[in-house]
Amino acid sequence: MIKHPAFHGDPWSLHEQELHAGMLAQTESLFALSNGHIGWRGNLDEGEPHGIPGSYLNGCYEEHPLAYAEPGYGFPESGESIINVADGKLIRLLVDDEPFDIRYGSVRAHERVLDFRTGTLLRTVEWTSPAGRTIRIRSTRLVSLARRAIAAICYEVEPVDGAASFVLQSELVVAAAEQRPPDRRDPRGPSVLSVPLRAEGHSARGDSAMLVHRTRRSRQRIAAGMRHTVTGPHGLHQASESTPDLARLTVTAALRPGEKLRLVKLVGYGWSSTRSAEALRDQVDGALSAALDAGWDRLLAEQRQYLAGFWELADIQLDGDPEVQQAIRFCLFHVLQAGARAEVRAIPAKGLTGPGYDGHAFWDSEIFVLPLLTAALPEAAADALRWRWSTLPQATERARQLGLRGAAFPWRTISGAECSAYWPAGTAAFHVNADIAHAVARYVDVTGDTEFESGPGLELLVQTARLWQSLGHYSSGGEFRIDGVTGPDEYSAIADNNVYTNLMAQENLRSAAAAASRYPERAATLGVGEDERMGWQQAADAMAIPFDADLGVHPQAEGFTRHQVWDFRRTSRSQYPLLQHFPYFDLYRKQVVKQADLVLAMQLFPGAFTDEQRARNFAYYEQLTVRDSSLSAGTQAVVAARTGHLELAHDYLAESALIDVTDTEHNVRDGLHLAALAGGWTAAVMGLGGTRFRGGRLALSPRLPPDISRLCFTAGVRGQHVRVEITATTGTYTLASGRPATITHHGEDVTLQPGQPVILPIPPPPAVSPVSQPYGRAPARRRPGSA
Amino acid sequence: MIKHPAFHGDPWSLHEQELHAGMLAQTESLFALSNGHIGWRGNLDEGEPHGIPGSYLNGCYEEHPLAYAEPGYGFPESGESIINVADGKLIRLLVDDEPFDIRYGSVRAHERVLDFRTGTLLRTVEWTSPAGRTIRIRSTRLVSLARRAIAAICYEVEPVDGAASFVLQSELVVAAAEQRPPDRRDPRGPSVLSVPLRAEGHSARGDSAMLVHRTRRSRQRIAAGMRHTVTGPHGLHQASESTPDLARLTVTAALRPGEKLRLVKLVGYGWSSTRSAEALRDQVDGALSAALDAGWDRLLAEQRQYLAGFWELADIQLDGDPEVQQAIRFCLFHVLQAGARAEVRAIPAKGLTGPGYDGHAFWDSEIFVLPLLTAALPEAAADALRWRWSTLPQATERARQLGLRGAAFPWRTISGAECSAYWPAGTAAFHVNADIAHAVARYVDVTGDTEFESGPGLELLVQTARLWQSLGHYSSGGEFRIDGVTGPDEYSAIADNNVYTNLMAQENLRSAAAAASRYPERAATLGVGEDERMGWQQAADAMAIPFDADLGVHPQAEGFTRHQVWDFRRTSRSQYPLLQHFPYFDLYRKQVVKQADLVLAMQLFPGAFTDEQRARNFAYYEQLTVRDSSLSAGTQAVVAARTGHLELAHDYLAESALIDVTDTEHNVRDGLHLAALAGGWTAAVMGLGGTRFRGGRLALSPRLPPDISRLCFTAGVRGQHVRVEITATTGTYTLASGRPATITHHGEDVTLQPGQPVILPIPPPPAVSPVSQPYGRAPARRRPGSA
Repeated sequence: MIKHPAFHGDPWSLHEQELHAGMLAQTESLFALSNGHIGWRGNLDEGEPHGIPGSYLNGCYEEHPLAYAEPGYGFPESGESIINVADGKLIRLLVDDEPFDIRYGSVRAHERVLDFRTGTLLRTVEWTSPAGRTIRIRSTRLVSLARRAIAAICYEVEPVDGAASFVLQSELVVAAAEQRPPDRRDPRGPSVLSVPLRAEGHSARGDSAMLVHRTRRSRQRIAAGMRHTVTGPHGLHQASESTPDLARLTVTAALRPGEKLRLVKLVGYGWSSTRSAEALRDQVDGALSAALDAGWDRLLAEQRQYLAGFWELADIQLDGDPEVQQAIRFCLFHVLQAGARAEVRAIPAKGLTGPGYDGHAFWDSEIFVLPLLTAALPEAAADALRWRWSTLPQATERARQLGLRGAAFPWRTISGAECSAYWPAGTAAFHVNADIAHAVARYVDVTGDTEFESGPGLELLVQTARLWQSLGHYSSGGEFRIDGVTGPDEYSAIADNNVYTNLMAQENLRSAAAAASRYPERAATLGVGEDERMGWQQAADAMAIPFDADLGVHPQAEGFTRHQVWDFRRTSRSQYPLLQHFPYFDLYRKQVVKQADLVLAMQLFPGAFTDEQRARNFAYYEQLTVRDSSLSAGTQAVVAARTGHLELAHDYLAESALIDVTDTEHNVRDGLHLAALAGGWTAAVMGLGGTRFRGGRLALSPRLPPDISRLCFTAGVRGQHVRVEITATTGTYTLASGRPATITHHGEDVTLQPGQPVILPIPPPPAVSPVSQPYGRAPARRRPGSA
Repeated sequence: MIKHPAFHGDPWSLHEQELHAGMLAQTESLFALSNGHIGWRGNLDEGEPHGIPGSYLNGCYEEHPLAYAEPGYGFPESGESIINVADGKLIRLLVDDEPFDIRYGSVRAHERVLDFRTGTLLRTVEWTSPAGRTIRIRSTRLVSLARRAIAAICYEVEPVDGAASFVLQSELVVAAAEQRPPDRRDPRGPSVLSVPLRAEGHSARGDSAMLVHRTRRSRQRIAAGMRHTVTGPHGLHQASESTPDLARLTVTAALRPGEKLRLVKLVGYGWSSTRSAEALRDQVDGALSAALDAGWDRLLAEQRQYLAGFWELADIQLDGDPEVQQAIRFCLFHVLQAGARAEVRAIPAKGLTGPGYDGHAFWDSEIFVLPLLTAALPEAAADALRWRWSTLPQATERARQLGLRGAAFPWRTISGAECSAYWPAGTAAFHVNADIAHAVARYVDVTGDTEFESGPGLELLVQTARLWQSLGHYSSGGEFRIDGVTGPDEYSAIADNNVYTNLMAQENLRSAAAAASRYPERAATLGVGEDERMGWQQAADAMAIPFDADLGVHPQAEGFTRHQVWDFRRTSRSQYPLLQHFPYFDLYRKQVVKQADLVLAMQLFPGAFTDEQRARNFAYYEQLTVRDSSLSAGTQAVVAARTGHLELAHDYLAESALIDVTDTEHNVRDGLHLAALAGGWTAAVMGLGGTRFRGGRLALSPRLPPDISRLCFTAGVRGQHVRVEITATTGTYTLASGRPATITHHGEDVTLQPGQPVILPIPPPPAVSPVSQPYGRAPARRRPGSA
């Protein structure tokens, strides 16, 4: 568990004041920098010690065979793993011939600051070498949000207490062995690959150097280059060299106190499955030249400017819980980093912050991450959906292989090919297809982007609707049933008529029918005729939604509420997450919920449940949900708020937002939990803010828990941005941009005019009966003693 | 497809008159010899050409890691595979320095006869060498039923058309590489192991030689020895030698026409996990010495005598279908071979006839093979159950690992450890535990063996009852439910309240309660008190048995009848077995049945269904059952007969009995389908004979299909053996041994006195509506044109 790294009042940064060797892997994830294309873990500049070294390029992976002791038809044969490409972060330092290594000598001062407004990781160290020489290092690192291919470091070193000779080695290195934790018992961990990169070329000249490598199986070619600007006192010497797996610039200098050696290192990356080594080299050289022309200060300025624009739309102010205030900005910053320049590549579950889940993207992206991006960075959301669209060939082929029509998108993937080797919690989780359709519909609804809607959007809706039409069937009673699939809750599998899945499929079918109606000619080119469109409508209207009339709740799936309830009292704290201590067969056959499933259905489809059903369902599933998945708390926060459990909503908001800075899941070493981080936004904006987008309109039903005195955020729909400020008693709405807009506040329509804030009273919350969680699984209370 | 090997009227042998190189692997399985301890595939004496060389010792296996691309808690980590031990069948021959190899020269005559009464495989060949010399070979092979450790070959060779020099090389060889088909797409095939045997010792002296090896991982030590008696004209020369993986006796002789060289080769095997190489060597030497003292003729006589006793009880005479008559004896013979001397080892699904299913034993043994052994060779049935009992430590540990009480026996195993790597069709198939309990109860009921009952029997019943008690739970309505398990039909999985499983569990709980009542003191030593016993009784009485009132049929499991029916019309013949052409997810969610499941429940629990339910259920499941499992036809034969579909029963009887001689499943190369072979007996005796054993009494309701004019068999219960002779109109019952016995004929009690046959009329069959099978999946008709 990470001790909070010094949250001393700065809500705009993550600030570490002590370095703990045992926490390196965790902090490497927290301090990771990324622009969605390049990801650099927060490894120390000097490379060692490290937890997991990591330099990633979005979409760049190696393949490996998937082993099955008992194979089956349709089991994917090839897996994909994100790879650690050439490390350009590395700057080694020798002080009077002694290597700077924090394991030796003594660290007199240490600080790392991940600044959410400058988009930089600043590190300052004061270190005394074993020989007694004290030096000071200040390193500032960025992965450029403005320049997709560029990362940079400004590294400054000076002697403090006497003259010293310095040798700086700025390197590009391809590791001789992958450095990954070998625990294959935990299915959430990464696969272990032998080093997948084969050298194809290298060069070094003057201040620049380049390595070109190629993956062995997936045949992806990667170029990594660097250029340097060195400044310092007279007498500097510098030389460069390269070998197949190493490029190095060496700078030597003798400095006296007061003198500084400064190295600005620009690193450029490019990769391609098709382009030649020469083309890639030129591409990287070009990006580096442009960055060199711009210079370090302009890179910093661009970064700050990009972020200013982001925070304008995305920032959330939350008074009364400074820890959560800081954590939410951490969340928003990292989600931005993951999505900013992904540009028609996947947004992996861990972004580009670590090797967890092999770097795969899941449904997390569409259901948890894209709502935030759609609101704050809509072009990134569109790009993420265009990536799905670009993988339609694989998805239609997969559907064909499974005997289905339309497209069957993969449960986990980098390239678009299915990489899930355990089908009951992979292929069977067909809801991923409706999740994509949901994200399409939401993006179009919020942005009004008709060009996207009539192009990739329509095709995604059509192909997923075809999947559902072929997956379901009509019962003798005329219901449209979807049997034998797995819903979001991974502690159940292969069940009939999962409510979440069926509601999502229903929406998918209706969205496709509606889009096909709006764009009949374009739909016709996809082969959609009136019969097919009517078929979708009919299936949607007949969709089976099971209800347990005895208990007055919706079963998560047919039969669920008749199963034995998990014996929570006999389950010890150390037996969570349950999947690591109990067999799937036992989990699947009992009432125990890993993560919001029916509750997620209630978040996304509030209109499908009466208030009474919502309250009863929420109470029922609260007592079964163990939150062994990081995806759950944000959703529970939203439904807790909607059902009047405001303090609980606050607890869940905090759990989701703090998940990584407190390492709640004990695996932040493998990378951040992007969906949970985005869940912090969801909990605040959709939960406490009660925000909904529907039909291009904004509706809010805000209500704050007692300990949060004020919540501010910007909600935008179709170019109209509304500044929302919520207190215990009022909601204040100010049109920030766009034409006059009509919004809904607690069911009441109000039209906003530019420059005229509207202040509306918040009705008192309804009286609610307390709900409870499984024994030992209540969230940490933000106000101890409260229920 | 094997062309029937010359069924020219001999009902007591399998007779091959032509050798087809492409059929070698198949005939190696059909002509395999075994005593249940040693198994020799029907490889040619000279070793090559071959399909799959195979020499097996029951229980002798190697371990290998089970790979999972996505591991899970409780997944077995180690697999087991039967190994090909030292080949003692090998006798190579050179004729004037040319190797006898049927691929060269020309085969002028070939014959192989597997004789069911002598228990020998006779081979005669007349071969002309490439140089033009014609010779005649006569080889007789046996694996001794009387001597567990001994196999023997009498090999005679003579020149036909002129003098020739002969070199015989009689060998023991450990293969340098496993010879197995590499197809890992088919989960029914064997794993491929690198050669698992490491040499520990070898010797050769005079006519004898010995090899000792040890497996690398499972640490099993194996000794194989041979001794020889050579006779022939004057001038013979013989010499022996050994190396770590080869022992050889070389005999040279010059023969003229009319002279014969005769080699009797005795081969002995022993293996142990604990005994030393020296002890094993002495054990094998001892067995060989005794066999040598007995001599070849006595080995033959013992074999014939053993078989005479077996056929006395086991033979079935069936007039009107000579092909099936012969096949049934083939079935009985091979089941005998698998069980005869298994002696507290498993009876694998393929006996010791091939490497299929890695040599694992499944529930096949208890439900399909043991009924026949219980009737015809009860001591072998008891031994098979004692083997299960001997694995209780592994089974109780497995239950503990799964969070259950009592014993959880493995789905597939050699040693007793779970080796199933696909849990939805492995661990989840908990019915295997009730299957064992069922076999215990049946064995005790038929034999009255109270010593077994109060010992291993009681403990097996108690530990399996405990499993069910912990697996099930009471619903709010007071039903005892067993959720999330897999029944016999492997095209469904992880369902609630599988009727077969629940009926079996009910019987298991009741059998345990009854046995604990009969042996209260012994039960007390197992910790069974009155409360626990009452708990079993209560759970059994409250057992949930779902029924679909709308359709008037039992759903195989809850919800099954609401699933989509498989589209059989759009499934082509080449897409069977379905599991090789469709994903599990699709099979599981639709109404398609691999093998009798609800129908098997109706076979085993006739009293649990009304006549109307039986008829409706049978018709319902007939149209869904594709028989992609070899286990199905025998069961369908029984229920077809019981519901009056007598011609269909005949068809299924034939399908089960002919499965291997016609290679219906296209995989007889990997070994025989023992359960299906036993199903031939079941179909005849339980099906057409309508035989039931219950409460130590024999009840019969025989009825013959039109084309079978007469059926005779012996039915025994508790030492009273009744000779049954059935014609179209009468059943004739003759007491063959034992005291006067009361039996039931079509519901009517009749007491048999020694020497007084009773002839009773058979009531006409009820009128029935025809039933149908899935498109293209009707069994081959025994009388073309009949329905």
